[in-house]
Parts: sequence; C-alpha cells; structure tokens
Amino acid sequence: MEIAALAKAHPDHWKKAAAIRALTLDAVAAANSGHSGMPMGMADVATVLFEKHLKFDPSAPRWEDRDRFILSAGHGSMLIYSLLYLTGYKDVTLDQIKNFRQWGAITAGHPEYGHVSGVETTTGPLGQGIANAVGFAMAEEIQRAHFGKKIVDHHTYVIAGDGCLMEGVSQEAIGLAGRHELSKLIVLWDNNDITIDGKVSLSDRTDQVQRFKASGWHVQEIDGHDPEQIDAAITKAKSTNKPSMIACKTHIALGHAAQDTSKGHGALTDAEQLAAAKEVYGAPQGAFEVPADVKAQWEAMGARGAEAHADWEERFTSISDRKQGEFKRAYAMDAPKKLAAVVRKLKKEVAETQPSVATRKSSEMALSVINPVLPETVGGSADLTGSNNTKTGDLGVFDTDNRGGRYIYWGIREHGMAAAMNGMTLHGGMRPYGGTFFCFTDYARPAMRLASLMRIPTVFVMTHDSIGVGEDGPTHQPVEHLAICRATPNSYTFRPADTVETTEAWEIALTSKETPSTLVLTRQNLPTLRTDYKQKNLTAQGGYVLADAEVGKRQVILIATGSEVSLAMEARAQLEAQGIGTRVVSMPCMELFAEQDEAYRRKVLPAGAVRVGIEAAVRDGGWDRLLLGERGREAKQAFVGMTGFGASAPAGVLFEKFGITTENVVAKAKDLLG
Amino acid sequence: MEIAALAKAHPDHWKKAAAIRALTLDAVAAANSGHSGMPMGMADVATVLFEKHLKFDPSAPRWEDRDRFILSAGHGSMLIYSLLYLTGYKDVTLDQIKNFRQWGAITAGHPEYGHVSGVETTTGPLGQGIANAVGFAMAEEIQRAHFGKKIVDHHTYVIAGDGCLMEGVSQEAIGLAGRHELSKLIVLWDNNDITIDGKVSLSDRTDQVQRFKASGWHVQEIDGHDPEQIDAAITKAKSTNKPSMIACKTHIALGHAAQDTSKGHGALTDAEQLAAAKEVYGAPQGAFEVPADVKAQWEAMGARGAEAHADWEERFTSISDRKQGEFKRAYAMDAPKKLAAVVRKLKKEVAETQPSVATRKSSEMALSVINPVLPETVGGSADLTGSNNTKTGDLGVFDTDNRGGRYIYWGIREHGMAAAMNGMTLHGGMRPYGGTFFCFTDYARPAMRLASLMRIPTVFVMTHDSIGVGEDGPTHQPVEHLAICRATPNSYTFRPADTVETTEAWEIALTSKETPSTLVLTRQNLPTLRTDYKQKNLTAQGGYVLADAEVGKRQVILIATGSEVSLAMEARAQLEAQGIGTRVVSMPCMELFAEQDEAYRRKVLPAGAVRVGIEAAVRDGGWDRLLLGERGREAKQAFVGMTGFGASAPAGVLFEKFGITTENVVAKAKDLLG
Repeated sequence: MEIAALAKAHPDHWKKAAAIRALTLDAVAAANSGHSGMPMGMADVATVLFEKHLKFDPSAPRWEDRDRFILSAGHGSMLIYSLLYLTGYKDVTLDQIKNFRQWGAITAGHPEYGHVSGVETTTGPLGQGIANAVGFAMAEEIQRAHFGKKIVDHHTYVIAGDGCLMEGVSQEAIGLAGRHELSKLIVLWDNNDITIDGKVSLSDRTDQVQRFKASGWHVQEIDGHDPEQIDAAITKAKSTNKPSMIACKTHIALGHAAQDTSKGHGALTDAEQLAAAKEVYGAPQGAFEVPADVKAQWEAMGARGAEAHADWEERFTSISDRKQGEFKRAYAMDAPKKLAAVVRKLKKEVAETQPSVATRKSSEMALSVINPVLPETVGGSADLTGSNNTKTGDLGVFDTDNRGGRYIYWGIREHGMAAAMNGMTLHGGMRPYGGTFFCFTDYARPAMRLASLMRIPTVFVMTHDSIGVGEDGPTHQPVEHLAICRATPNSYTFRPADTVETTEAWEIALTSKETPSTLVLTRQNLPTLRTDYKQKNLTAQGGYVLADAEVGKRQVILIATGSEVSLAMEARAQLEAQGIGTRVVSMPCMELFAEQDEAYRRKVLPAGAVRVGIEAAVRDGGWDRLLLGERGREAKQAFVGMTGFGASAPAGVLFEKFGITTENVVAKAKDLLG
Repeated sequence: MEIAALAKAHPDHWKKAAAIRALTLDAVAAANSGHSGMPMGMADVATVLFEKHLKFDPSAPRWEDRDRFILSAGHGSMLIYSLLYLTGYKDVTLDQIKNFRQWGAITAGHPEYGHVSGVETTTGPLGQGIANAVGFAMAEEIQRAHFGKKIVDHHTYVIAGDGCLMEGVSQEAIGLAGRHELSKLIVLWDNNDITIDGKVSLSDRTDQVQRFKASGWHVQEIDGHDPEQIDAAITKAKSTNKPSMIACKTHIALGHAAQDTSKGHGALTDAEQLAAAKEVYGAPQGAFEVPADVKAQWEAMGARGAEAHADWEERFTSISDRKQGEFKRAYAMDAPKKLAAVVRKLKKEVAETQPSVATRKSSEMALSVINPVLPETVGGSADLTGSNNTKTGDLGVFDTDNRGGRYIYWGIREHGMAAAMNGMTLHGGMRPYGGTFFCFTDYARPAMRLASLMRIPTVFVMTHDSIGVGEDGPTHQPVEHLAICRATPNSYTFRPADTVETTEAWEIALTSKETPSTLVLTRQNLPTLRTDYKQKNLTAQGGYVLADAEVGKRQVILIATGSEVSLAMEARAQLEAQGIGTRVVSMPCMELFAEQDEAYRRKVLPAGAVRVGIEAAVRDGGWDRLLLGERGREAKQAFVGMTGFGASAPAGVLFEKFGITTENVVAKAKDLLG
C-alpha cells in the first residue's frame, strides 16, 4: 500500500503513529546520532499495541500487574521514549526527548533500566530483550499460580529485530518459551529485511516462521503498517495457548528518503529529507511539535490504564493480609525476618558438626533452609542439576502442569538462563538463581554484565571452580574467570571456603537489592574452618582474619580464597610449628573487602609481615593490589596460583603438579623471610 | 530392533562397533571418570563413517585434503580416541587409552587440539564444534576456489549432541551454513533423547528436523544403529547441494544396564554391568582387548586412506610450483616476504603524512596493504562492516556464486563468527580476522577462550573500545573488557595508539603461529605519534619509551595505551613546560611487555619517578603491576581511568566527566610529587 493510502485509510491511527515518527526524526537530528529507521518502521505496531492492548498506567509505572513491554531491538530507543512521553509518563518530559543521548538525560542511547520508569530492561546488546522476556513470562506464570489470576494476569510483549533473531541466545529463548508454552509471551518481529551491512539475505535466509513453529510457537504474518491486521493478530495471539510470534512486515524508515535501506537503520539527520518525511506524515514541521489533539489521544490511552489499575488495587485489597504482605515484601525485595534465623541456625549446626563437604554441597545445605522461608526464590540449572546442587526438595518443578513450580530445568542454555533470570528479577517479586560450571560463565557473560549494569540482584551459582574439577580438563577448568568477574563493576564474586562462608554468601546475595552475585563453588570436599557460630556475617566484610599469630610474633600473612583457605591453614600450622608467626586471611569477596574503610583493610592486612596469596587461578584477579599493597611496598610478597590453563588429571595430581600445595606456600613464605 | 538382532544382521559391522564400545567402557572404568554413553550410542554411526566415507590417512594426520571429523559432543572423547587408536594413528597408543584422563596422557577428558594428531579442534564446551565446522567448510570452499578441486575437495563431518543443538551458538552456525549452502558440511546428530538432567523433553521440545530445514538444510532421519541406513544417509548427504543434517536415533549407552537413562551419560564403572555389556557386545572380557581380526579391519580403513593420500600427492605435484609454494606456505603459517615490505612502506608513509584517524581506520589502512600480499587472510564482521573497517577492496565477498571471496558477512552473530574463524584457522591455510564492537567480545568469549587454549592465531578486530563510543552508552562501552582479555592466558591484547602501532600490531597478529590476537581500536580520531618510520616493530616489545625527559631530569613516568597515549603526550608537554621532566611509555600490549626480560622492563619503567597510568577502562586490567611495581614500591603512583560503567553522551563530554583529561593527569602527577 502506498503511504498516502495508509494515511487515508486510517487517519486517526496515522496521526498517532506519525507523532512517534516525527519525534524520532527530531530527537535523532538534535543528537546528531541514534537510530531513526526502526521507530519509524515499527510506529504502527507500537501504536496499536499501546492503544488497543497494552495494560499500563503512566501514573504508576511500577504497578505490579501491568503488561511488560520490552524493546529488544534497543537501538530503536526513540520508539519507547516517544511512547512514554506521548502517553504521559512523568519522568519522560519533552526536555528529556530534546536531550536524547546527552549527559545527564535519562533518554540514553539505548533504553536503560532504572533511568526511565517505563523501561523494563536495558537493551541494546541484541537478543537480550527477547531472552529476558522468557523470564518475565515465567515469573508471571509462577506468580499467577501463587497469588491467583485476579492479582497476576498480564502479558509480556517484545519488539525484536532481525539482529535479535540472529543472535544465538534467541534460539535458547525460543526453545524455552515453546517448551513451557508461555502463552502470554508475544513477540512482534520487525521484519524489515535490513541490517547494517545490507539486506538480511546477505547473512541469513532462515525462514523465521518455520523456525518458531519448530519450537512450538503460534506464528502469524501480517503487514506491519496495517492497524487492523496488527490489532487482529495481537488479539489472536492473546487467545492461543502457545507463545506467539507475529511477523510484522515493515519498511525501515518508512516515508523517508532512506526507506528500505541500510542507511535508514542509522541516524537520519539531513534537514531537507527530514522536512520531506514530515510532509509525508502530515506532521508539524516544527521540531518536537505534537498536535494537541494527537497528544490528547495518546494521553487518553494512559488514562484508561489508570482505571484498570484502580480496579486491580480494589481486587488486591480483597486477598488476605498475609498474601498482600508477602506480595509487597517480595516486590520490595525485602527479606523475611525468618531468613536471618535459619541462616543463624545452619551456621550453628555446621560449626558444631564440622562437615567436610564441597561448597556446592554447602550451597545446597544453605538453600535447603532458605528456600522454604523465601518463597520468591526460583532455582535452576543449565542441565547440571546434580552437579550444581541447586535443587532443593520443596521447590517443585516449573512445568506446563505445575506453574507454581520454583525449579527450572533450563537445558544446555547458560546464556538463555542468565538472561531469563534477569527477566525474572526485573519482573519483580522473584529472586532467581541458576547454576552451571564456572567455566561456562563465558556463555552467560553478556547477561551477567547487564545484571551488573542494571543493578539487579540476580544470583549465578557457579560450581566446579578451578583445576579442582580434575579429569574434565582445561576446557572445564576456570583460571581467568575470577579475574573476569571481579573486573566487572557492581558485582559480588564470592569464593567461600566452607559451609559457613557459603551460607553467609547466600545471605548477602539474597538480601542484595542492587548487586548481582556470583557464587563460585568447589566440586571437591573442603573442611569446615569457621567453628565459632556466634560470629556475625564475616563474609560481608569481604576478607577477615581467620587465624592469627600470637601478638607481636606475626611474620607472615597468608591470604586465600575458597578451597585454598584450608591449604593456607595447613601451611600456617607448619610455619607456626617452626616458630614463624602466621596470620591467615580468608578473602571470600574482594569487592566487599574493597568497600570496607581503610582502617579495617589495614587492620586485616597490616604492613610488616611478608604476604603470600593463594588462589587456584591467575594472579590478575585482584591479587596485585592485595599483595603489593595499596599504598606501595608494604610487604615482600608472592603468589601461589595458576599461570596458564589447567590439564586433565585427577584433581589432587593437578594441585601437586601446578604447585598449589602446602609445601610450596611454606617454602615461598620462608623464602620471603630470607 | 533388539540388540541381538542388530548383531546378527551385520556381524562384521557389529564387531567393529563393539570394539569402540568395549574400549570406552574399559577406559572410563580405569579412569573412574568420563562419559561412556555417547561413544556407546554413536559407535555405529562412527564406524560406518570411518569405514565407508571418511577420507583420512593415519600415517599423515595433517594431510591437507583429508576430510575433517569434529566431535562437537566432546565429552564423548573416548569415541574419537577409540577411532584413532583402532585405525592406527601412531600417537594414540593403547597405553594412551589406558591412561585416559591422566596426567601427561594426550587422551584428555575432552579432546584437545594439539595433543592428539587426529583431533581437529578442542571440544567440550557445547556447540563449539558445530560452529567451528562452519569455518572448516567455508575454508574448504575458499581454498577449492583458489587451488582447484583436484587439490581441495573434502568434507567436514560433525557429531553433535542435544547439548550442541540447545546452545544458541548452534543456531548461528546453522543459519550461516544454510545461507552459504555449505554442501560439504554434514552433521550427524546423536538423537538420544537424554541430557544430564533427564529426558531432553524436560527442557526442549524443538522439532530439530524442522528447525534445520527452516535454515535451508537437507535433513534425513535414520536409525542410528542400522549400518545400512547410516551408509545410505551419508551417501545421500554428500550428493545434495545443501548442508546436511542426519538425525540419528540412538540409544545412549546401548547394551548397558544404564541404556536410555541420564545415568548412561556419565561414567559407567560398575564391574558387573560392564561385564554384562561386553557379553551383549560379544566383546572380549579382558580389559582393553581388541580381537586381532577386528583391529586388522580397522587398520585396513586407515591403509585405504593412505592410498588416497598418495594419489593426492601426485595430483599436488601437477600444479604449478608457485601454487604449491603458496599452498604449503599458507599451511605452514609462514608470512610471505612481501609482508615486511608493505608494513615498512605503510609505516613510512604514515610517519611522513601523520594522519589523524581512528585506529579502526588505521587498521583498514594496514589491511589494505596486507590483504593483497597475504592471500590466506579472510576478513569479516558481525554486521558492522562499515564501523569495524574490516573490508578492503581486493577481498571479494564470499557467496554461493563467489566461493573465492575472502570477506564474510557474518550477520549479527559474534559467537558464531568467532567459532567459525577458529574453524578456519584450524582447517589450515587460512588467517581469518573478524570484527565487532569490543563490548561484544562478551558474546564471542567462549570461542575466544578456546583460541587461546588451542594455541591458534585467530584475530579478533574489536573497535569502539571505550567510552569514546559516546552516545550509544554503557551497553556499548567496554570498561572491563581489557581486563578480561588480558587475564586470559596465551592471548595478545593490542590497544594501539596510532596508525604505526596499529600496523605493527597487525604484523604481529598475522605472523603469530600460536597466539590469538585481539586488536582493540578506537571509534574516534587520534593523532599520529610515531614519526620515526625507521624504527623496528616497537609494539613487539609490548611497551616502550615514546617520549622521554632530559637525562637526569625524569620525575614523572606516564604510562598509557591507545587513545590515552596522545593525552599522556599532552600532559607531558604541560609538565615539561613547568620544568617537570616527564617520560611517556606507550604500552600497546601488556602481555608482550611481560614477556620481555627484566632488564628491559626496568629500563622502560625505572624506579624513582612517580607513575601515572592512563587508560579509559577499569584499573583491574593489569595496571597494579605496572604502577605498584613488580618488586614492591618503586614509585608513588596513581591511575586515571574508569571505576564503573560509562554513560550516554558525546565522547568528549564523557572523557571530561569521567576525569580522563590532560588536566587531571597533570594534577595527579604534581600531587604525587608533593
């Protein structure tokens, strides 16, 4: 259909969509950067979605039962900013639109969670949004099962582009959604045939319709500029019992000289072409001008949402006070009072019984007491349930016939799992954790980074943390991954030494509101080292003195994490036996140690004594700072760890061959003492 | 079909396959670890493949025109070790099989490239093998176009499991192979319905047949235990003009008590069950015993390959000496003599004209002179060709009608690109490089790690290297990625400061034989700093003195990389103007600097002067060591860089707001001087 005909066929719709297109052109022109074509191409779909289907209340953006709208193709950020401004989200003012992509504006180049009230997740790295959406939709199912349909009953809508569908993580998401029949997940594919390098067909000829169908999706194909087709397709998608994909055939940069070209993907800033496009739209030529009647129609959509919200609030008060409290507490991410009690009790039991277990088992012990008192946890594993020890008896398995189940078999999909867990956290009311081998954080990294950037407390349970993996060999033995995790801003990397530290790490991870945690756990058994159960959460200080020399006799400080702390304790025993006063510092979380005040850090790591760091990983993971000293040479120092990749052999042999032994630590310490 | 019937229907075949099954059981039992079920399930497919189809010569494992056999489901490593031992690869002795998974043995837990002559790629991290295979098959197409079908004409066979197909990277591989009609790629899917957590259907119900067809593959479904069906399917697959997937319905751990169960996936070590399984197979009960007649039949397959190889050698001598030389040189990874000359010439031109360009543009300038003299390079980008500057005019585009094209439009598939590039490198005779934004190394990381582990020189071109990205914001601004790359063993991370350093980095990357390189390049323009074109490759020393203080007057050393070196030079000018003698050290590759002898390192970074490190990234990326000093306190020090994620705003504003400025460097230096 010609553009003129489109405008004529649905004049009211056209004007509303034109407002998005014009705002996009103006904002990108003002910023002299950005992506014009996608919002211009998908304006019709978004307009119909917001007008006819999306349940949202601009005056209460965090209303728990709102529909979630996810712009997986995050480069088209002006689409969502336009929608939020037009419908009346208070934080998205016209000034913010005018300051698109500028310092201090909330309207960042890509939509960022926490900046803008109506942005549900940070997107831009392609494929993340569609994979987050699986978690959003699962969270909705689980909460609906727990709280009932009158409280939880919303859809998750995604706008995804060709880039999202080419990224491998999308397949993981599609497979999961199909397997779990997430019927309230609706993906609107911006099928515009264009990528940055040219036609999609340059790099892909996949039949996306068949691909989605192969994973059990309901699929429709429509003209993405025809409001009636869009409306009908979304209506139909809502009624199926499968996840839905609507292939929306669109023209990128519709109505602009760059329409249907790669150029149209980017920043369209030419003044004449801009004016001509506005002419085509019938939009005002003035920059950032939206006709009052059009703005009013958009705001009316928001107002309708406020009514729906009011109805919901009434229904919400009809459920029991206990249920209301639980619901609100979970969304506030507040821990129930019982959590501290079960943690204290477990620490006491462990301190008394002193089990020798792998910290992955310690983690299971902690989860076994925590999950029953924290109904918002959702566990899972990327097909390593028995190895990651992530499943506790009370959770139940999430499935099509058990929507309240709180354990997810994610399959061999580390990336999809991590992204979906982020989606659950973002949805609200959920605290997901999921496991794989620590080495395969590599697969999950794009999503782990976004958890840090978004400041959300997703928990990654990473077992098999070093050469302690043994025979599986270097493909499965992390050496650089502690460094990778620790280098990532706003993340906690816990490598606990025993069951007490593991329990403390879980307590921190599950009470954190803004920081994701990675629990790095052993395959092999470790002794219990912390036996004073009355101690507070020492892991919260990041590092602490586990065993000390006699006053005035300290010559050596051994600093270690995880499985190497017990090795440090053995080395200490030998050194002390030789009259060499030795302190052992356990350092389960370098990031938290760095957050302590300097006085504390210097108390734990005073100058004077020689220092030996011990960790079965490369030194790059923050050790230089601890060993060389923050203010220069505070000590002679050495590091006992890995300098390259591991090998395939029994774990005990590997520690021996790579020199991560008590003997070597003792020798290094004595060598430093001269 | 009952097992007894299978054995009876094809007794010769059965015995050969039984040898694989028995060796697997024995090796896993001896190691008391490993994965028995997969080799036992896929023994029939592998036997038919090796007997009837695979072109290989155990006496010349690196024969360039061999078929490539890739065990993507690498946990089933005993399958490939059995095959190599049985057919007579000299390094895979029975002793090696007996020492499966032990220290010093080449028979690692997962097959490792470089350890075993018949292992084409390291697998274990799932999905990597099938994605490598795309690169293998592309390399074959490109070389066939260059050298002719009588020299290059081989297949790439992959055995992939459910895990490989669930990993997202497999979708990227499937899409690429379908798009490029890689008809000599044949994937044998071990369709056994079992994963570690249980039935595949627990986590996935994708119709894999439809999924592959949706991307343009030829698909067949067979009984994976029927040798006639297997043979017919492979024969058919070889004749189609599409990539082929053969869905082989198999029983994991066939014939063992654990058949068709998750338990069967792991180590089957129970002695009685082992004996019973051998009974079913009709295999000798003695550990590691292979009947002489069976071994002889396996060795005969290898001998047939030697004949085919001899024929090929004859054909090879019939092509021109020049072609022979080019072919052998590329496989030896030797650089042509012309390379040094074009590099020298470009450095001279640049030193004279002193262009102010982004290093991504510098990289294009280097490639423009290198690609014409290095016919084994294959360029590409994950849909960012114009941004990564990876395409030079002479390459031609690889496509179905241009198999000799040396530029690949990878699509939005960073992970698939990196894994396929590894496959090209592993294939031999190719030097692939491919680009994306540096931030999206996150997506490619699993493959980048394997390049390091395998010791292969794949080149990753990573542009948009810092907050210099500007308005796209923190999702697109790397801050931790230099730390991530530098923490990975056996890798070079280059962050060049100008066109000369960029050219030098390319020279190192394209002459490296055992180390992958990551070139970290700017979006924004940088001045030319190196103007003495007669200098040798200073980047090869990792770090060097770019500008110095007068003798005896050095008070300050500024150490910087990439875009911050010019900032250091400006700061130096200001400090020198104030009478403060200042040295600037450019540090384009910390890994290479660390490889220099201590005398050189101390010459570049002598004690005494205060040190300021400058890099628009987090300090974790190796800075502590450079600043705090290797042997303790050599200097007062400070770091000017990032402490968290970036933001969305014009690049200049961001450098200002985050304090990465000349003024701040000068102030820090003076502050340290007191």
